[in-house]
Amino acid sequence: MIRTIAFDADDTLWPNERHFRSAEAFFRDLMSAYHDAEWIQERLFATEMRNLAHFGYGVKSFVLSMIETAIELSEGQIQGRDIQRLVDLGRDMLAHPVEPLPHVQAALAELQSDYRLMLITKGDLLDQRAKLARSGLDAYFPIVEVVPEKDVPTYRDIIQRHGLAPETFLMVGNSVKSDILPVLALGARAVHIPCPDTWIYEHVDDVDATAFATLEHLGLLKAWLEKEAAPPQSAQN
Amino acid sequence: MIRTIAFDADDTLWPNERHFRSAEAFFRDLMSAYHDAEWIQERLFATEMRNLAHFGYGVKSFVLSMIETAIELSEGQIQGRDIQRLVDLGRDMLAHPVEPLPHVQAALAELQSDYRLMLITKGDLLDQRAKLARSGLDAYFPIVEVVPEKDVPTYRDIIQRHGLAPETFLMVGNSVKSDILPVLALGARAVHIPCPDTWIYEHVDDVDATAFATLEHLGLLKAWLEKEAAPPQSAQN
Repeated sequence: MIRTIAFDADDTLWPNERHFRSAEAFFRDLMSAYHDAEWIQERLFATEMRNLAHFGYGVKSFVLSMIETAIELSEGQIQGRDIQRLVDLGRDMLAHPVEPLPHVQAALAELQSDYRLMLITKGDLLDQRAKLARSGLDAYFPIVEVVPEKDVPTYRDIIQRHGLAPETFLMVGNSVKSDILPVLALGARAVHIPCPDTWIYEHVDDVDATAFATLEHLGLLKAWLEKEAAPPQSAQN
Repeated sequence: MIRTIAFDADDTLWPNERHFRSAEAFFRDLMSAYHDAEWIQERLFATEMRNLAHFGYGVKSFVLSMIETAIELSEGQIQGRDIQRLVDLGRDMLAHPVEPLPHVQAALAELQSDYRLMLITKGDLLDQRAKLARSGLDAYFPIVEVVPEKDVPTYRDIIQRHGLAPETFLMVGNSVKSDILPVLALGARAVHIPCPDTWIYEHVDDVDATAFATLEHLGLLKAWLEKEAAPPQSAQN
């Protein structure tokens, strides 16, 4: 019986990757005098991967990776005003409105009376807290965990720290790698809600798609819970 | 009677500001062709203050502020390789060894059997977690809170969330603004351990220094606790 439902934030509750995709388009355009689009994108991704261990996830890390890639691709010829445009782009990304995805608000409002809701997100602490506040969804989440990495030790720690039994814990998110597989490994439940924008870094090959449920959107979660994870009293009916 | 002791991290458990001070010296040197040292420092501080609401605390935010200031002070003439040196400087700052300050390790080892120890720090989540791991002090802290801002609502939330009575809670730190005043406002206790490097942003004027204790170093905390905040059984002796 599920008692706690934890939600991923970016691209599960509100759009996020699309802002990075459009920032990348801006970056490819800015650097188009130096290289072709495909090579620019490839070098940016390589810089991001190299920087992940140093700078972590989030907009500030992404801006630093764009700046480094711009210097590399221009062989140091990039102009100060163009670097400034990348910093400004980051500031804009951090300030953009946070609109919940369709069905999200209604689903949370419906679920909050029967389940303890939790938000588990990786990324930049200040940025994630600010987005939650701007989304207007903060009242639904008595527990908010901003973690450096969403892996098995992180989920184990959260489940233990809040005194939960894994079989009563459900994670809902758009990333098979971060939201689904580590949770299943702990004996807890997971529901995948795919997002077309999912970052290539989050892609996983050879997934056993029968091991977890996939729903089209959050509005379908309540019906899934009633069918697949019915509370004990339903069994008595 | 104090049961929980929370510690600030940067410049309370390990040196931090001195790394920023030496990064600033590097920056003033890098920009010395354009302006004099005092003006460079003043503009950098102004950029940092302007960026705090957007980028928050921490090394990544500091690097972005150095880059913006460099572009401003050079009127866009700064070279790509010099911008790269600022990014590299940030990566170095994030990787530097974390050596506990004198007396810290022994004090924590002594206190951990009688008190629940907690770490409360603001800054970048990944950076702070990584520093705690590198310091070797992580085993002393069953509870670690990395918060976006250390103000009254933040401390109230932490105290409530962990089910603590304010009068049993002691905060220890080097910043009067962040570690002492908001804690006293909640009816909890606070001990100030000054650090000569404290960031100018953390300076507070007109403090009533009789409202809290000031100790020279953490090795003096146990004796202070025995004298000033003795457990009830001492009163019976």
